[in-house]
Amino acid sequence: MAALTFELQATDGASAARAGTITTDHGQIQTPIFMPVGTVGSVKAVTQQQLKNDIKAQIILGNTYHLYLRPGTPVLEMAGGLHKFNGWNGPILTDSGGYQVFSLAENRKLTEQGALFQSHIDGSRHMFTPESVMDIQRSIGADIIMAFDECPPYPSEYKYARQSMDLTHRWLDRCFARLAETPDKYGYTQNLFPIIQGSTYKDLRTASAQYIASKNAAGNAIGGLSVGEPEEMMYEFTALCCENLPQDKPRYLMGVGTPWNILEGIALGIDMFDCVMPTRNGRNGMLFTTGGVVNIRNKKWATDFSPIDAGLPSEHSQYYTRAYLRHLFVANEILALQLASIHNLSFYLWLVGEARKHIQAGDYASWKNGIIPVLKQRL
Amino acid sequence: MAALTFELQATDGASAARAGTITTDHGQIQTPIFMPVGTVGSVKAVTQQQLKNDIKAQIILGNTYHLYLRPGTPVLEMAGGLHKFNGWNGPILTDSGGYQVFSLAENRKLTEQGALFQSHIDGSRHMFTPESVMDIQRSIGADIIMAFDECPPYPSEYKYARQSMDLTHRWLDRCFARLAETPDKYGYTQNLFPIIQGSTYKDLRTASAQYIASKNAAGNAIGGLSVGEPEEMMYEFTALCCENLPQDKPRYLMGVGTPWNILEGIALGIDMFDCVMPTRNGRNGMLFTTGGVVNIRNKKWATDFSPIDAGLPSEHSQYYTRAYLRHLFVANEILALQLASIHNLSFYLWLVGEARKHIQAGDYASWKNGIIPVLKQRL
Ligand SMILES: [Zn+2]
Ligand SMILES: [Zn+2]
Repeated sequence: MAALTFELQATDGASAARAGTITTDHGQIQTPIFMPVGTVGSVKAVTQQQLKNDIKAQIILGNTYHLYLRPGTPVLEMAGGLHKFNGWNGPILTDSGGYQVFSLAENRKLTEQGALFQSHIDGSRHMFTPESVMDIQRSIGADIIMAFDECPPYPSEYKYARQSMDLTHRWLDRCFARLAETPDKYGYTQNLFPIIQGSTYKDLRTASAQYIASKNAAGNAIGGLSVGEPEEMMYEFTALCCENLPQDKPRYLMGVGTPWNILEGIALGIDMFDCVMPTRNGRNGMLFTTGGVVNIRNKKWATDFSPIDAGLPSEHSQYYTRAYLRHLFVANEILALQLASIHNLSFYLWLVGEARKHIQAGDYASWKNGIIPVLKQRL
Repeated sequence: MAALTFELQATDGASAARAGTITTDHGQIQTPIFMPVGTVGSVKAVTQQQLKNDIKAQIILGNTYHLYLRPGTPVLEMAGGLHKFNGWNGPILTDSGGYQVFSLAENRKLTEQGALFQSHIDGSRHMFTPESVMDIQRSIGADIIMAFDECPPYPSEYKYARQSMDLTHRWLDRCFARLAETPDKYGYTQNLFPIIQGSTYKDLRTASAQYIASKNAAGNAIGGLSVGEPEEMMYEFTALCCENLPQDKPRYLMGVGTPWNILEGIALGIDMFDCVMPTRNGRNGMLFTTGGVVNIRNKKWATDFSPIDAGLPSEHSQYYTRAYLRHLFVANEILALQLASIHNLSFYLWLVGEARKHIQAGDYASWKNGIIPVLKQRL
């Protein structure tokens, strides 16, 4: 079948925001887009029916590290890939496992060859290399495969950041080489996205972005941001990366972020986002709404019989009340986690859809500047 | 509006099974029926959309004890009753809280007046009387209100069982008196079902059934069974109760049970059932299927890519595979609890629907005898 393509459809006059369409063998994605995170093959507390019909997700993420450990690549291969295994028929992107492995801190060791680590489940030892991670992602069968990279912590010393970036670039070449010598596993095309690193050093980020751009990949990603640095710094380095990336390929800012982070990222020219925040914060009772941030556990909602979010044209957010959702949280009902996750994801997908409309209408920057203070306020 | 009515539509030739229609102010219920348990106003891990569209529930249960403690009657009254609070627009039945209070064992004290108990949440002291429990159920706003009864444990001494039954009967009179002097709270009719007690003594059960029948209530219930006694004894006393209850009123066997318990209960003339088993066992990975009982955590399902239940015409049970559901349980994903609960409830609702069809076709007894060994086998 065919490699991923990107059609740029509109650009904003007063910002670098773009609207486009990504076409994969599992369908199209209208950008800018937010991708719900389905760590172990399930977007936590959400069914595939709800993802598709209610949340209107267009692409979901899977985590290579988690899927490699459970259910494991032999099971995924027997199933015919993750799409068949979990029943999500739309596009899927998998990360490379690098971020998770480097988060294991004391339980991993880094070499030129790759990363040796111990499973967080049973302590068993495993080795990830650029080659093995490409093989695993082939077996998972994602439409978009992420390169195996090292994600340095913030802050990092210049010397460490530079060595790490160079290693990530050498690993990238090995990723491309491995994919070139292995066929697509399930008949559809799997597309590699390389990842820009370089920590918070301008010369490194510029060099990395140019190196990544030179690969002429189907799409490009920015890694190593949203790891603890100040928000302004994240925006600054996002802009720097975007300036050095091609216009005609989708740009993915990894692991970002809050609704306002996403709107600012779009203004800088980002097309794709993912984050666990809508589901994780939702499970903790923090709701993002069209009117601001709601801590639904707060007693003030106990008798608020208005919808979870009257401004959001989404079935569950309109159907259930704040009082009921608060009650479910206080009573420790599983349904609380489901409704909060569905609401927050519906909100994120609505938000990127609105952004797209405003880019197409040509008033994105002014719309964004007007809505961000509303979204940020605590209700 | 109008009191609950029951229309008897078909009876089985070879058993006491019946098919009928219950009409309430919140809609009709085709019997025999299974009622999912929505303890604190939520059927655990299931949305109201899934209950209605996927599981095809016709009536759900609420627990007075739990709803009284959380969210509490003031909140329910402000919401306009439980239907408005939780968004379930169909018929609702509430238990009387008696069973829960008597389960508190050391934290309750029983007198002629009622039951003094301590909350399992914060240890606070509360008193349930027949009058207060009727008032609470008025505030909850259930279509069917259960009488406040004492449910003696199994086994009970004859003397204790007799005193307990007499107390339940005196309390029943107080329930009727209280309802007569308090209006329906939300404009629709709330119907009291009295409860037969008498433990496992034939003379007591017969006396209790006759006393309850003499009240000419809109429907009648059998309590105090499925509390640890042998299955054959449960069937024997169910039959005895049914023989002493009017034909033209629905009969509700409380807290029962397994799929085969329900099919046997139907054969004895029961119309309504409730049980936490499909949801509770589902959350533990035990599935009831058209082919038998499945422990989905078992390694044997790891690569079984067939549907959860190929024989069940239910969306989720057809859509997801056993391998995927097993993986979700092994990985401790919340979605495991959701899919197992939806499946088991879909199965229970399908089962009573099939029972109804066979009663109408006149071959219920032989169908039941054929299917029970299949449903009971361990896959
Ligand atoms: Zn994030
Ligand atoms: Zn039960």
